[in-house]
Amino acid sequence: MLNYHIRPEPGQKRLLLLDQRLLPGQEQYFICRNADDVTQAVQNMVVRGAPAIGVTAAWGCWLEAAHLEAEGLGESRFWEQLLDEALQKIAQARPTAVNLAWAVERMRKVWQKNTPLQLHALADIWRNEAENIHADDIELNIKLGAVGAELLTDGDTVMTHCNAGSLATAGYGTALGVVYAAVESGKKIRVIANETRPLLQGARLSAYELQKSGVEVTVACDNACALLMQKGLVQKVVTGADRIAADGDTANKIGTHGVAIMARHFGIPFYIAAPCSTFDFRATGDKIPLEERPADEVLRFNGTQISPAGVDAYNFAFDVTPAALISAFITERGIFKPPYGRSLNELRHQTEDKA
Amino acid sequence: MLNYHIRPEPGQKRLLLLDQRLLPGQEQYFICRNADDVTQAVQNMVVRGAPAIGVTAAWGCWLEAAHLEAEGLGESRFWEQLLDEALQKIAQARPTAVNLAWAVERMRKVWQKNTPLQLHALADIWRNEAENIHADDIELNIKLGAVGAELLTDGDTVMTHCNAGSLATAGYGTALGVVYAAVESGKKIRVIANETRPLLQGARLSAYELQKSGVEVTVACDNACALLMQKGLVQKVVTGADRIAADGDTANKIGTHGVAIMARHFGIPFYIAAPCSTFDFRATGDKIPLEERPADEVLRFNGTQISPAGVDAYNFAFDVTPAALISAFITERGIFKPPYGRSLNELRHQTEDKA
Repeated sequence: MLNYHIRPEPGQKRLLLLDQRLLPGQEQYFICRNADDVTQAVQNMVVRGAPAIGVTAAWGCWLEAAHLEAEGLGESRFWEQLLDEALQKIAQARPTAVNLAWAVERMRKVWQKNTPLQLHALADIWRNEAENIHADDIELNIKLGAVGAELLTDGDTVMTHCNAGSLATAGYGTALGVVYAAVESGKKIRVIANETRPLLQGARLSAYELQKSGVEVTVACDNACALLMQKGLVQKVVTGADRIAADGDTANKIGTHGVAIMARHFGIPFYIAAPCSTFDFRATGDKIPLEERPADEVLRFNGTQISPAGVDAYNFAFDVTPAALISAFITERGIFKPPYGRSLNELRHQTEDKA
Repeated sequence: MLNYHIRPEPGQKRLLLLDQRLLPGQEQYFICRNADDVTQAVQNMVVRGAPAIGVTAAWGCWLEAAHLEAEGLGESRFWEQLLDEALQKIAQARPTAVNLAWAVERMRKVWQKNTPLQLHALADIWRNEAENIHADDIELNIKLGAVGAELLTDGDTVMTHCNAGSLATAGYGTALGVVYAAVESGKKIRVIANETRPLLQGARLSAYELQKSGVEVTVACDNACALLMQKGLVQKVVTGADRIAADGDTANKIGTHGVAIMARHFGIPFYIAAPCSTFDFRATGDKIPLEERPADEVLRFNGTQISPAGVDAYNFAFDVTPAALISAFITERGIFKPPYGRSLNELRHQTEDKA
């Protein structure tokens, strides 16, 4: 399990993030000292993947509290206001994944529960809470992996889109966690990693961590999907999710919807693997905000202009796969199958009871 | 109309090919002096697009005859054998597009019809024939464009995949010829160019020639297709073809099959625009050879390694779209609609009558 990519530096008030923009070519760390650094790291995709940015956001809350304390603001009257603004900024760094808001909300609740308290005390409490969120994420990924591994058969080739692996979480991964768990249980599983333009998280990140973990991986351009399925080279599709609405409609990396349509066309099971914190029971599919990123991410590559100057490009970072195309949701609380009206409602009650 | 990309140099025995690997950044010409140069240009994709490589192949036959003549081989006993071997090489430069074999076959027929004759006389005849094939291609594209333009409505946005434009033909284009003709007839048409990994013919070449022709074009990653269709941003899909089998199954650039599946899913018409020479009535869809190209085309970009060393990639250059997903074929002889058993059989008789 790759678990060195999001880590507080021992004895320091700094968070080290393996810069995922530079993988696999370079293993460089981006250092965060406060909420601004964390917001920038999330926006610029130093760290990406819904669970990973949730965990990073939690660490970011702590960093900001520690930063304000170090700046001597603990004695001022307005540290609470400054902190509140910083938390809002972190929560809004990117719009689609629910995990940012979820993690910041969890940090806020701990703050509210312990109010009134001093800034340095809050920083201590938050460090603990960030550690908990971080450790919980790994633990629930391992559970989720074991749940999902049951769906894979010895000899399967699993297609995945983008990166929903160790790097997209605190460790182990969601979609790739399912693969790792199946491999650990003795099944032979191959992975086809869709390269996932424009930022190539599949070709770069999924390939990187699968290779490090000793799982056979073959990269394919996103547009090879139909041919590979038609040739019988794909037995299952498993992807992650950035936000799952109450109706089961699922926002994930751009292209996921297309893969789901093709999987249905060829009769291949299509699974979403995500922790329960990815469900947003207040949302419906058509209400999930879809981030648009700069056209240059599509039009340039490594500083090289691909298209003629003056030509524009679409760059929606996510799409929404309708629930009807999803064979099942794999979560740490088990597998949820259609009809989703009933099964997801049950999950909703379970999670609300816990909360 | 962009028509300077395949041209014999006046008064010289040389063919100038605009090097499409370098577009749009650089406009450089690759010079061909014989069959070897032409074969290399086709294999390395200096020139690509089924009709364009057909026209180039015809010029290649002439170049080789002129080259052998210049080498003083016209008096030898074995120039016919040398020429025959060179023609075979050209015809087999790439396997999927039927146009290479078609053009070489047409040149061979002229040779057979005029046998016995001397090498210099053959070179003269072939220069004429290459000119005819070249001019015919432009003329039939213009006809095909006018036929297809009827299918487009003022205000449509047309999605296209890869490049089936001027650059993929001797001039004007097939799929983009339809767009150009509609625009010339006064309709406002926008184009979404799928970037078409791995070699980005959409982002580079379609964007380049549409911009030069004053047609509004927006580039999109291949994996954005489902979202753009779902958002109602695509009214029609028009692509070219490399080989159309007797049953209507159509080989075209990798990804076309997926676009067709998604178009069907969203109820969007999906058209193939191709000259009649693209039909191979001896083939069925499952018998069309699909070229596999080096994995490095996927794994590297502009010399930069994308995936970790040691990871493999699929790189099928084409896929086959089943006839059932194709709304109609647009040809210079009209529009052919389902049921294809009947309509393509009619086309077969028409073309056989002509041949």
